[in-house]
Amino acid sequence: MKRVDLNCDLGESFGAYRLGSDAEVIPHISSANVACGFHASDPLWMDKTVQLAKAHGVAVGAHPGFPDLVGFGRRELSVSLPELKAMVQYQIGALQAFCRAQKVPLRHVKPHGAMYNMAAKNMDMARAICQAIAEVDDRLILLGLSGSRMLEAAREVGLPWASEVFADRAYEEDGSLTPRSRADAVITDEDQAIERVLQMVLQGTVTARSGKVIDIQADSICLHGDGAKAVAFASRIRQALTDAGISILPLKGLD
Amino acid sequence: MKRVDLNCDLGESFGAYRLGSDAEVIPHISSANVACGFHASDPLWMDKTVQLAKAHGVAVGAHPGFPDLVGFGRRELSVSLPELKAMVQYQIGALQAFCRAQKVPLRHVKPHGAMYNMAAKNMDMARAICQAIAEVDDRLILLGLSGSRMLEAAREVGLPWASEVFADRAYEEDGSLTPRSRADAVITDEDQAIERVLQMVLQGTVTARSGKVIDIQADSICLHGDGAKAVAFASRIRQALTDAGISILPLKGLD
Amino acid sequence: MKRVDLNCDLGESFGAYRLGSDAEVIPHISSANVACGFHASDPLWMDKTVQLAKAHGVAVGAHPGFPDLVGFGRRELSVSLPELKAMVQYQIGALQAFCRAQKVPLRHVKPHGAMYNMAAKNMDMARAICQAIAEVDDRLILLGLSGSRMLEAAREVGLPWASEVFADRAYEEDGSLTPRSRADAVITDEDQAIERVLQMVLQGTVTARSGKVIDIQADSICLHGDGAKAVAFASRIRQALTDAGISILPLKGLD
Amino acid sequence: MKRVDLNCDLGESFGAYRLGSDAEVIPHISSANVACGFHASDPLWMDKTVQLAKAHGVAVGAHPGFPDLVGFGRRELSVSLPELKAMVQYQIGALQAFCRAQKVPLRHVKPHGAMYNMAAKNMDMARAICQAIAEVDDRLILLGLSGSRMLEAAREVGLPWASEVFADRAYEEDGSLTPRSRADAVITDEDQAIERVLQMVLQGTVTARSGKVIDIQADSICLHGDGAKAVAFASRIRQALTDAGISILPLKGLD
Repeated sequence: MKRVDLNCDLGESFGAYRLGSDAEVIPHISSANVACGFHASDPLWMDKTVQLAKAHGVAVGAHPGFPDLVGFGRRELSVSLPELKAMVQYQIGALQAFCRAQKVPLRHVKPHGAMYNMAAKNMDMARAICQAIAEVDDRLILLGLSGSRMLEAAREVGLPWASEVFADRAYEEDGSLTPRSRADAVITDEDQAIERVLQMVLQGTVTARSGKVIDIQADSICLHGDGAKAVAFASRIRQALTDAGISILPLKGLD
Repeated sequence: MKRVDLNCDLGESFGAYRLGSDAEVIPHISSANVACGFHASDPLWMDKTVQLAKAHGVAVGAHPGFPDLVGFGRRELSVSLPELKAMVQYQIGALQAFCRAQKVPLRHVKPHGAMYNMAAKNMDMARAICQAIAEVDDRLILLGLSGSRMLEAAREVGLPWASEVFADRAYEEDGSLTPRSRADAVITDEDQAIERVLQMVLQGTVTARSGKVIDIQADSICLHGDGAKAVAFASRIRQALTDAGISILPLKGLD
Repeated sequence: MKRVDLNCDLGESFGAYRLGSDAEVIPHISSANVACGFHASDPLWMDKTVQLAKAHGVAVGAHPGFPDLVGFGRRELSVSLPELKAMVQYQIGALQAFCRAQKVPLRHVKPHGAMYNMAAKNMDMARAICQAIAEVDDRLILLGLSGSRMLEAAREVGLPWASEVFADRAYEEDGSLTPRSRADAVITDEDQAIERVLQMVLQGTVTARSGKVIDIQADSICLHGDGAKAVAFASRIRQALTDAGISILPLKGLD
Repeated sequence: MKRVDLNCDLGESFGAYRLGSDAEVIPHISSANVACGFHASDPLWMDKTVQLAKAHGVAVGAHPGFPDLVGFGRRELSVSLPELKAMVQYQIGALQAFCRAQKVPLRHVKPHGAMYNMAAKNMDMARAICQAIAEVDDRLILLGLSGSRMLEAAREVGLPWASEVFADRAYEEDGSLTPRSRADAVITDEDQAIERVLQMVLQGTVTARSGKVIDIQADSICLHGDGAKAVAFASRIRQALTDAGISILPLKGLD
């Protein structure tokens, strides 16, 4: 039977600042990437988010980012590899404390924002992140961009990994995401987005921007969690996958 | 045979800012309280400090503080109990990641600065801190001020605990520390300080400022780690204890 | 002719985090208290907020707070007086840069949250804040709680000041605000709130919780800027004041 | 008569963390670049540093950096131009508050670390910084790397500017600094460094690494302020310049 994971960034609120529709989107997903206090979130929101995930039977993952709260971790930062490794381990550990307190396992790690994008292309950064994870717990699953250096590094390091795809993004022939600078980078038609997801999960292919059909591994689909429209789309895509006989399940690890 | 722990705050450097004489003081101590990034330290310094402790066979403890880097965690902050609990769990977890990566156990938790002082007198805060620790790992040892609410809370929560004493501080008849506002609060004569420590460890008593001899439990002695004088004193006190047949050993836990 | 200022805290967004309905509330007010990056806001939002105030002819004031972004400056922090003075000057200066860039004057300073509340009762803190302001620019108007130490300190320091009242808060016989711990601390009936404001402005009195009518000086009324209800109330109160022949004007300073 | 400015980064301490030998180096310099709380310093240290500069008759300049305290502003950060402009204005304003309180003028602005290096090569960033400064006060002097985009942008914007040279760095034929990745990038021989400085100030030339003599404008020489060796060198270079009949004076502005 076909299976796929639906993941979403959660726990991005900070102090009095609310961000995201966590309570609304969580019924539709199987994995939550929980911000760890560097680019978003704080100890209290992390605690609440782990409790929310537990209540909904959603798998918890760490979502480490650059230490750039005002930039939401979206700005590239020229960190050294030891700095990168240490900041990933710190954030994983911080979230694990709440997981242990709530008696839920930490299941995966997905880097956030600029860290995710830089490591997708930079093998040194990708390797440092995977080593950081493996040293803390080598059963944690690295969730990274399909076809990226991140997954290559996970294989090299011997870390379980999962390939993430996007419902609302166009792909190039080499499997990379069409840059956002292009007008046709984002797929705004929801029906088309759902059709593409079904193709990715059922056939393991996606139609690139050029029209060519290429291979893609869709272990997990990234959903957005901010606003009513995003929540409605999460609900629709979940329904469409279920209707097609695909199980929505957390990432499959070594256990 | 008598035993006592010598503890010192370590890993308080931050980025390019160096603080403390960690490498010089660590040969003389048995437990390191490692700052966790809120009042001092950062991921890279935490990593280095755990490595240093491991190399010297020194037990590692978490030293959580208030999120007040510019105030070094020494300023009272009116946190709510859920905030307090979450910030303690976050910091413990962050340090645990480096412990796991270095394959050394996290042994104890000692709150820092204003958090330590407030919780020593405030049972609600003391209880929240002990619950926070117990939820993450109920074998972690709470290291708190002798005779304080912290130890009372640890007993209530069922957490292992150890009683900390100070070589260079005067005590009142009720076992509390003489407030620093008094001129005679600090014992500057090193010979007298060492004599007092021996009395505390060997006889379980201390002579209060009034001259009355009172009971005190000395599981661990707090040493300072900043500057040549502090390091020399750590060396002297270690020698004096060893000469008196007292073993310098990390905190005794449940194992 | 009677006049009164309507003030509101603005510019509290931070990075990707939005807070407050600045654009909706600003047509109804005469003074904006702009957060300065310590408890809320960031350089970009401060710049945008000064531009917004300028576009609406609203007077700009600095709203300095404690360095506690995660606690939104609402938690008491035991700062020293030199620390307090320096953090107030820093924040005033930071906002002044945007005022100069936009060629609008900085008109007043209103401390935020815990700083406001602590200084209302603590003469040393109140004096430090007023001295901080006066040293930077002694024509800046201190906006503080009616009857508080803040206004007393402003008079002592020789700083222009204005007395702030609340439409939605009950008062005690001594002119202090009824503590929020009491169920009847907040006035939820909008009609009653408006009636009270008119009495405060026109007659210089307020009916205390006990029923006794006491004197109160209402130079400025504090409005809230978050949410549709707050904006609607701001509109209503402005209309009621105008209908009563009261001019809505920024704080009257020395010029 | 020949003149030159000797500048040094000051006020880089943060809370309990001490950095630099400010009190020792300040007698030897004519301009202080004061950190503004983003990459180093805090309000209290800024206040103290402005007081120190005032006591020694040293000109005060702002030293804005990226918001990266843990990385000391040395890590490249991909900020947008509006973000860059706003963070520069914020930091200038913050320092100006202490200048006004101490009744000393703010004379110049020198970006720090990665901001300085990125803007030296990137005209968009250089222009944004110069516009930021000019909007706050168009009499502030931009202190930037000799031959860099920063000076080009200052000319374009109409901002006074000064060209900074380094005593201890090798230069390429095009006037750029030899990259630190090369072994011969830093001049460690103090006599040679002093000789080079005299040549730069007296003849307006420097001998590039290739041996070719190129033109260079030396309005200000950057000195280091950390450690006994740096202070001793500052003293030596000041003496050598004075002996050669060169006046050590702050930057010459429009006044």
